[in-house]
Amino acid sequence: MSRVAIAVHGGAGRRRPGGACEREIHAALLRALEGGRSALEAGRPALDAVVAAVTVLEEEELFNAARGSVLTEAGTVEMDAAVMRGEDRALGAVAAVRSVRQPIKLARLVLDRGREAILCGESAEALADANGLELVAEEEDLITEHRRQGWRRGSGSASHGTVGAVALDRSGGLAAATSTGGRAGQSAGRIGDTPLPGAGTWADSGTGAVSCTGDGEAILRAACAHEVHVRLREGRSLAEAAEAAVFEELARFGGDGGLIAVDAQGNLAMPFSTEAMSRGWWTAKGSTHTAIA
Amino acid sequence: MSRVAIAVHGGAGRRRPGGACEREIHAALLRALEGGRSALEAGRPALDAVVAAVTVLEEEELFNAARGSVLTEAGTVEMDAAVMRGEDRALGAVAAVRSVRQPIKLARLVLDRGREAILCGESAEALADANGLELVAEEEDLITEHRRQGWRRGSGSASHGTVGAVALDRSGGLAAATSTGGRAGQSAGRIGDTPLPGAGTWADSGTGAVSCTGDGEAILRAACAHEVHVRLREGRSLAEAAEAAVFEELARFGGDGGLIAVDAQGNLAMPFSTEAMSRGWWTAKGSTHTAIA
Repeated sequence: MSRVAIAVHGGAGRRRPGGACEREIHAALLRALEGGRSALEAGRPALDAVVAAVTVLEEEELFNAARGSVLTEAGTVEMDAAVMRGEDRALGAVAAVRSVRQPIKLARLVLDRGREAILCGESAEALADANGLELVAEEEDLITEHRRQGWRRGSGSASHGTVGAVALDRSGGLAAATSTGGRAGQSAGRIGDTPLPGAGTWADSGTGAVSCTGDGEAILRAACAHEVHVRLREGRSLAEAAEAAVFEELARFGGDGGLIAVDAQGNLAMPFSTEAMSRGWWTAKGSTHTAIA
Repeated sequence: MSRVAIAVHGGAGRRRPGGACEREIHAALLRALEGGRSALEAGRPALDAVVAAVTVLEEEELFNAARGSVLTEAGTVEMDAAVMRGEDRALGAVAAVRSVRQPIKLARLVLDRGREAILCGESAEALADANGLELVAEEEDLITEHRRQGWRRGSGSASHGTVGAVALDRSGGLAAATSTGGRAGQSAGRIGDTPLPGAGTWADSGTGAVSCTGDGEAILRAACAHEVHVRLREGRSLAEAAEAAVFEELARFGGDGGLIAVDAQGNLAMPFSTEAMSRGWWTAKGSTHTAIA
């Protein structure tokens, strides 16, 4: 039996001073880990675990995903999310959705539907509606007062608060999930790295699962998540592979960011080139940890 | 000075019987090559050459891109396009645009703007409008009678008629461009491999430029274009790298398709696993060729 393991992140970026907020971040990461861990301990697939963990983080307005998303230049919320299953690299992703309460659940629905891999905009929202997923009024239910104030000031506070999870299950299956509100002040219609396989999200049960956060345009030029996969395939260690993706490939394009990754042996790596990346991890052989800087 | 070179494709898929249509395809490929070649011979960058070539192919209703695009399940046209510049891997891409006459020109505009890499839907169309690109009434100007008949019959005729180009310029710069009307009968809002860096489109002047065509969902799971890049980086030949991407990586996911690729030495490769892939190529040291099967 594989070593089961899960890691989560709440985004890479600047360290925000002030203990109260950081205590809340630690607590939210722990809740997300708990959600994923209980799925893994019940013998459920890694895909269930990463969706459970990201669902918890999406609901937290501390992070830039779902409720709590940053606003576009137009003052709207537009969210991207993806899940990928390592056994067959099946991908479900949504881009530029506005009225969906939990984009990661819609991404999962796209994956389970097994037809297209990526859907965007109103068509994706219509699929959510037709399948009973919760739709919300963006203004009332997704936009927090904090984000509206940031938008009025033109500040990109916590612009790197993307959330994500990676997990290894009992059967050796890997999965990754990522969800984001994008970049503060971005053009409406922007699609970042999050929903793109090989950029912000990747899973292959023969190598590893990866969820990235940071400068989206640099991450997608670097093919950051796929660079981890390629190095693992070549026999490099997960630590080497993950660090090369962040400090060599991503850095080459002037991008800052980080990633969380798990390999088929249950090793974890969480490198980042920013001041901070809120993150948490749990393995069957170890205890639960959370960290910010 | 590098060997300048350009290759174009008009999509991988079944061979359609009947000489008349094939003569038109050869002629269109030649016109596209001519457009790209004149840019290269004038000393202009590879990016200009691939956009010029794809612009010619988009205008041809023989191919599934711009005018002549297949229709979605809803009977609408939705187009994806991308251009990538090898020197800095700058990407410009658009997804699910409906009213833009030449999506590849909009993708180029996104690249030149240098802000976001990928824009989708109405926001992308608004950018086109604000910058003087031609907008059209989808019904009248993009939907051909042939495609409407195919939609009424529910047939996916020429569903793999994506177009693309790759080129090497005098300065050693590489670029790739791809444009598509997607898959016949696809869900509205689908985004395929075409606008995704590392999936359907890729360019890195240190390795190669790639444009893919075929089963989009399989191509993006295979990270097909990035797999060519990785093998070139490892020192494999372009022929080996391109064939491995199509016959190993893409085939693993049950996908059929093909790609055109050029490397930094001006070598060309055009493997495909379908019955046919319409394609053409020209190098400064050789003559012009077109082929279908």
